[in-house]
Formats: sequence, structure tokens, C-alpha cells
Amino acid sequence: MNKGLLIVGSVAFDDVETPAGRRERSLGGSANYFSVAASRFAPVHLVAVVGQDFPQDHLDYLGAQGVDLSGLQKVEGETFFWKGVYGADFGDAKTLETKLNVFEHFSPQIPEAYHHLPYVFLGNIHPTLQSQVLDQIQKPKLVGVDTMNFWISGESAELAKLLKKIDLLVVNEGEARLLSNQKNIYDAVNHIKKMGPSIVVVKKGAHGAMLFHPDGVFAIPAYPLSHLVDPTGAGDSFAAGMMGYIAQHHQHDFKTFKHALIYGTVMASFACQGFSFDRVKEATATEIEERAVTLRKMISLD
Amino acid sequence: MNKGLLIVGSVAFDDVETPAGRRERSLGGSANYFSVAASRFAPVHLVAVVGQDFPQDHLDYLGAQGVDLSGLQKVEGETFFWKGVYGADFGDAKTLETKLNVFEHFSPQIPEAYHHLPYVFLGNIHPTLQSQVLDQIQKPKLVGVDTMNFWISGESAELAKLLKKIDLLVVNEGEARLLSNQKNIYDAVNHIKKMGPSIVVVKKGAHGAMLFHPDGVFAIPAYPLSHLVDPTGAGDSFAAGMMGYIAQHHQHDFKTFKHALIYGTVMASFACQGFSFDRVKEATATEIEERAVTLRKMISLD
Repeated sequence: MNKGLLIVGSVAFDDVETPAGRRERSLGGSANYFSVAASRFAPVHLVAVVGQDFPQDHLDYLGAQGVDLSGLQKVEGETFFWKGVYGADFGDAKTLETKLNVFEHFSPQIPEAYHHLPYVFLGNIHPTLQSQVLDQIQKPKLVGVDTMNFWISGESAELAKLLKKIDLLVVNEGEARLLSNQKNIYDAVNHIKKMGPSIVVVKKGAHGAMLFHPDGVFAIPAYPLSHLVDPTGAGDSFAAGMMGYIAQHHQHDFKTFKHALIYGTVMASFACQGFSFDRVKEATATEIEERAVTLRKMISLD
Repeated sequence: MNKGLLIVGSVAFDDVETPAGRRERSLGGSANYFSVAASRFAPVHLVAVVGQDFPQDHLDYLGAQGVDLSGLQKVEGETFFWKGVYGADFGDAKTLETKLNVFEHFSPQIPEAYHHLPYVFLGNIHPTLQSQVLDQIQKPKLVGVDTMNFWISGESAELAKLLKKIDLLVVNEGEARLLSNQKNIYDAVNHIKKMGPSIVVVKKGAHGAMLFHPDGVFAIPAYPLSHLVDPTGAGDSFAAGMMGYIAQHHQHDFKTFKHALIYGTVMASFACQGFSFDRVKEATATEIEERAVTLRKMISLD
């Protein structure tokens, strides 16, 4: 069996404005953010599409981090583009513009060599594309999925089909409520579990995250940050730290998952401290571990 | 030195409407909620005022719980009255009516026997009244204070004077931001600590609570509840569980404080499950301990 982690999602250029500043043609996209952060923990295999305008030096960077790019399609046209703005509270971004570009005709092709990867994460793309990935591969040990309000509202039937086939759903509180039509977060998670995934992780931004695992519930705070720059990609970086830790330890029991949440939270904290993944790239192994220690102390009763 | 806990605050009738129903002339008030919950942990000494209309059977109930009522003034007139309504999210209540009644001329008189109590909590009343309490007593081991937006905005100078003399401030996130004029909660707490209290506890409702102690930061989730009835008094019950645990163990080092936060969270959860303190009164010692175990498990990495 091959080792490592399959990520399928978007690679993008982002125009982003936050209370801390703005950046044009920032490198982004769910699979891109995921690959940068997860490669700190385990070998990552990336399936996505970029246009001819995508910078080779970033692909070289990913390659140097051990990210396997043999599933990355480079096609005629322009790379997926997103433009968004964050309000004063750094909450959900308001989308100002989306250009699908080469993503419009993207159909994920999973290289033969990836068909037996034990851990799979399906970044936030159309649920039909997410399902197409699962149709091409052997049942992995763990399939995790991200989604968003746009698909929950607009593609509920396709999403419902997908949810039956996955193990882990990673959503924020608003998405959990919308998907379940339940206001209370515990009712929402119980409802979602009946839709398929046995494990649900609820991201709560500055309030941390919660893990709902068959063996119990676990809650951690966000890493304490007093200055945010750009939360774009924080959710992907969270999923990446979590799935990366799981792939690295090659198990996903409750205890491993708890520690995985710690590392997800750590990687999300770096993502918020710079535009694009500037700060994630800079984070040393020592810094990552220091932040994990801080989080463990914040929930320790000793 | 006397043992136990001094609480000074309001005793009231509340008309409350929540998404779960409504109750008229519900027994309430900060010191009342506090006494009911804290008496589960330690001897409570209550200083407050009620009118002639206040039911003797509730005072008898408090007495039976070991609450010392020798500081409770019963005077001519009607008891303090509050009317409020909660929105669909059970967030901050909207005040519809307040009648100070006998509270208008309340001046807390601390019985001689209470002057050396080691633990003091000043419920949410005018900061000048809170200061008057401290002027009458010897320096306790720990003074905790609750306040609200109304005093933060309207009595900032009096509140600033009070904060210099206390050890612990218990506030919610919005109050912390308003008091410090800082958006970020870590910046807010650092600012508040410079105003006086060495310990700050930030209540975050459904998102739990955080303890900022000189020896570190600690975070716990809320107790998982899927059905709320009435959050009135949850903050007072939280403070009561916390201060009650501290008084019971007669220390307030970081580790004791962490466990105190657990019991505060537990008592707040009971408060939310019924109107007035109906559910708090019913909670058995076994139930309290079971909820504490649940919370400890939710943050355990084992």
C-alpha cells in the first residue's frame, strides 16, 4: 500500500482584502493551502488543475516539500480566480468575484499510483467532482470532506450522495446548521452523522474546534493570536494539519484524532498570520511544536 | 478566620420570555442565583435587600441550604423587578423593564461577623455599591467581581476605581471588549489586567469560558446541552460554581482555578435548563459530578 495523503481540490489566484491589508494574485485554493500545510507531516499527493499562467516556481516549491504533482493537470487557459473581502471581525469572507476559468471543465483524474492511498481529503469543490474521486479509488482508511454553504444550498442531493460514502466531514458552525437545518450544534452534528460521516469536526474560528468521534467529544480553543492578517485558507490548513498528523501516525482512533486537532489548529493559526501561505511556509518544526505545546497546556488540568 | 463566601448583589423578581416559554415573577437576582448554586460547595453569606413582597418560603429554602441570611435586609416596599426577553439564539437578553424598587436606596451593610471572610464575590450591581462593600471589610484572600455593559458605559470612573481593588473580574466577551476598547480578546484581557485584576475569566456562552491567570491560560467548552430553557442567571451560577469550589478548597492557585471553572460551567448548564433556578435546585451531587466528569473528558488528550 502506498503511503500518504491524497488531496483533491482547487489551486487558485486570490485577490484578498482584509482589515490588515490587501494582496492581488495571492496564491491560494483549497488543495494548494492543504498541500503546503500537510506536507509538513506526511507525503502529499495533489490532484488539481492550473492554467498556463500558474507560476512554475510555486510548483517547484511544492515539489521540494515532497508534494507529488503527477496528478496536477496544467491546461490551456487561466487558473481559477477568487476575489473576496473580510470585515472587521475577520469572519466569513464576502465573495466579490469568482472566475472558474480552467476549473470549469475540471474532471479529477486520479493516477493509478494513488488508487490505494490510505488517507484522502476532498477539498471544497462541487460534490459531484468529490464523488468522482471516490469512484476511481479503492476504499481508503479514511475519507475526509470539506464543503461550503454554496454546495449545501445548491447541490444538496449530490452532497447527500457523497456524505453516505465518507468518514469525516469538516465544517464550520454555520455550515453544520445549514446542512442539518438544526440550530443547536449538538442536534446539528447528530443529524449530520445520520447522513453518513461517523466523524464530524466543527470549526469555530476564534472559538476553536470540536471533534465528534464515535468514541467521544473533544474540544480545543483556537491558538491565541492577537493580530490576524488573512484568514483565507485557515480552514484548509486546519484540515491539512489534522489529516497530515493522521497520515503521519497511520491511525485515526479517538486519541490520535484529538492530537490531530491540535496540529490542525496550529497550522490554521499560521495561515491567519500572513497573506496566502506566507507564514505557513516560514513556520519551523520547532515553532509548530511550540504552538502544539501551548494548546495542550491551555486544556491541561494539571 | 470565618469560613466561606460573601456574596453581595441583587435579589429580584423576573418576568422572562425565552424561545422555550415564559415565566412571570420568577425568583432571580444575581446574589440569589449565586447563593443557590454556591451553597452546593461552601457556606454562603448573603448581603442583599428584598421588599415585603418577597416569599418567605424561598428564604427558608436558602436557610436550609446553609445560606447565612443575617445580612439580608427586608424593608418596606417592593422587591427589585426585571423584565427581559431572549431571542432565538438564547444570546444576550433584551431588557424590557427594570424597577429598582427597594434597591433604589440599598446600601450594603456587611455584618461584623462577615468582615473576615476569605472569599468575596460582588454580583452585578452599581460599582459604587461594590466599592462600599470592600470599604467595610478586611482584605479577603480573593475578591471577584461581575459587572455589565450598563456600568461599563455609564459608570466607567467608579468601575475603574473598583477594579484597582479586586483580584478577579468575570465578564463576557462583549463586556471585555467594551471595557478595554479592544476588539481582540487577548488584547482586551491584557488591557483589563492593567486596570487591576490579576485574574480575568471570560464567559463565552455556548463557546465555553477562558481563564487568564498569572500562571497561564485555560479554556473549557460549555457543557453540551441540546435544549435550553432560560439562560437568566447562568453567569451568576457560573461565578457561584467557580467561587464555591475555590472557597470549598480554600485556595485559588492556577490548578484549583481550572477545576473551579469546570464546576462553574456545570452550574451554569443547570441554570440554562430551567426557569429561575428550578433545575439548579434539582441537581443532585451525583449529577454535578457526572457533568464535571463529562467536561474533563471533553478536554482530555488521553
